[in-house]
Amino acid sequence: MKLSIIKIGGNVIEGREALKQFLVSFAQMEGNKILVHGGGKLATRLATKLGIESKMVGGRRITDAQTLEVITMVYAGLTNKNIVAELQAHDCNAIGLSGADGNTIQAHKRPVKDIDYGFAGDVDGINTATISRLLSAGLTPVFCAMTHDGKGQLLNTNADTIASELAIGLSKSYKITLYYCFEKKGVLLDISNEDSVIEHIDSKKYQELATEGIIADGMLPKLENCFHALHHDVHQVCIGDTSMILPGADLFTTITL
Amino acid sequence: MKLSIIKIGGNVIEGREALKQFLVSFAQMEGNKILVHGGGKLATRLATKLGIESKMVGGRRITDAQTLEVITMVYAGLTNKNIVAELQAHDCNAIGLSGADGNTIQAHKRPVKDIDYGFAGDVDGINTATISRLLSAGLTPVFCAMTHDGKGQLLNTNADTIASELAIGLSKSYKITLYYCFEKKGVLLDISNEDSVIEHIDSKKYQELATEGIIADGMLPKLENCFHALHHDVHQVCIGDTSMILPGADLFTTITL
Repeated sequence: MKLSIIKIGGNVIEGREALKQFLVSFAQMEGNKILVHGGGKLATRLATKLGIESKMVGGRRITDAQTLEVITMVYAGLTNKNIVAELQAHDCNAIGLSGADGNTIQAHKRPVKDIDYGFAGDVDGINTATISRLLSAGLTPVFCAMTHDGKGQLLNTNADTIASELAIGLSKSYKITLYYCFEKKGVLLDISNEDSVIEHIDSKKYQELATEGIIADGMLPKLENCFHALHHDVHQVCIGDTSMILPGADLFTTITL
Repeated sequence: MKLSIIKIGGNVIEGREALKQFLVSFAQMEGNKILVHGGGKLATRLATKLGIESKMVGGRRITDAQTLEVITMVYAGLTNKNIVAELQAHDCNAIGLSGADGNTIQAHKRPVKDIDYGFAGDVDGINTATISRLLSAGLTPVFCAMTHDGKGQLLNTNADTIASELAIGLSKSYKITLYYCFEKKGVLLDISNEDSVIEHIDSKKYQELATEGIIADGMLPKLENCFHALHHDVHQVCIGDTSMILPGADLFTTITL
């Protein structure tokens, strides 16, 4: 059975109209589907209003106790519930979840090495039985970027990671397409030309593109993450803007082994 | 099949240790169970920090757009997810829900008569099929005091009402005991004596107590609400402090028709 897992990031969530449009398309997608969202700048803005300093190291958020509270309020509360209510308005029977709900995503607090990331969670496993049951009941899980350690501690977890871990965990039961929505139309051959989308990348092509320096910087870990999922039985990964989930969409990047 | 529905209020949620203790007891309760919680003062405190004025009329909150955001963050986010994570630590497979999740509780925005309550929701119905499916899957629903109108609008809804509507809606499928936890040990014969708990109240006794003025003020609508549930096939209602859910507890008020 097919399952689509779609991850949306800050650029979609921030724009109220863009988000609404995306949710209409998402609601119309046929078959089993799961949505994963972050929260990003909304959390930073609330933290600023509350006088909580947002600490970042190397682009990663340091999640102290106060920041975790803000994230729990914004990701699991404000963002998640508004997405769910909006999907319900479009006849998509959404159910909002953190990894603690139904014990769906177990994680552990990232061990302190050089940097103490605070309440950041690295995923240990996915509760595939419960998620499959929700899907079988006709429900569409909407995950925010939070997990738990099974000992009462909520943890902040990267949304890209949650999406790929869900895809890997559920790949034994479903034929999975994993969609990463971001601000560009796909992986670009020429970074200055928005329409120079590389339509298909496989392992061989990836090596070539990386060697030639066409895939570089932030795209390298993104694609490493995609191939990690593909090596763990995920059927295919698609990268593009939100229009790629529309029926008949053609301009985005499909990645396979 | 038996189902226990337990509503906890602000007095339990506010005290971190009291809440933890209650959740240990709740996790140990046998059989199907549902938890319903409000959020109260935490939301008021966050609103104050954010410079949002909390408007109350006759003890009821006026839910303007900003207040609804605060409530969504605190009720559905911070409070709900921490309760769920804590229950998971005690082997209770909790799943946190607003009425929008799984379309579990449908409501409409309260019509404006003398007072405009803003985004306050009056319950239209309960999605018993989805809730029963979650229970059958071994999950324990944890409802925050929010509903939705099916058109994308989240609504603030009284937690006592949510508990009784859930009880009424599910009474066709389950033999339901509805527990209202509050700060006293039960309905008191003598308001100045905390131990003067009336152990059993039925319709006849209620009329006597109301006529004699022993039940008055805030207890009157509370008990009206209980009898409303009993008249709609809820098996029994219990009122007391959180210790009433402990095995062998005896000092609380049981209400039947």
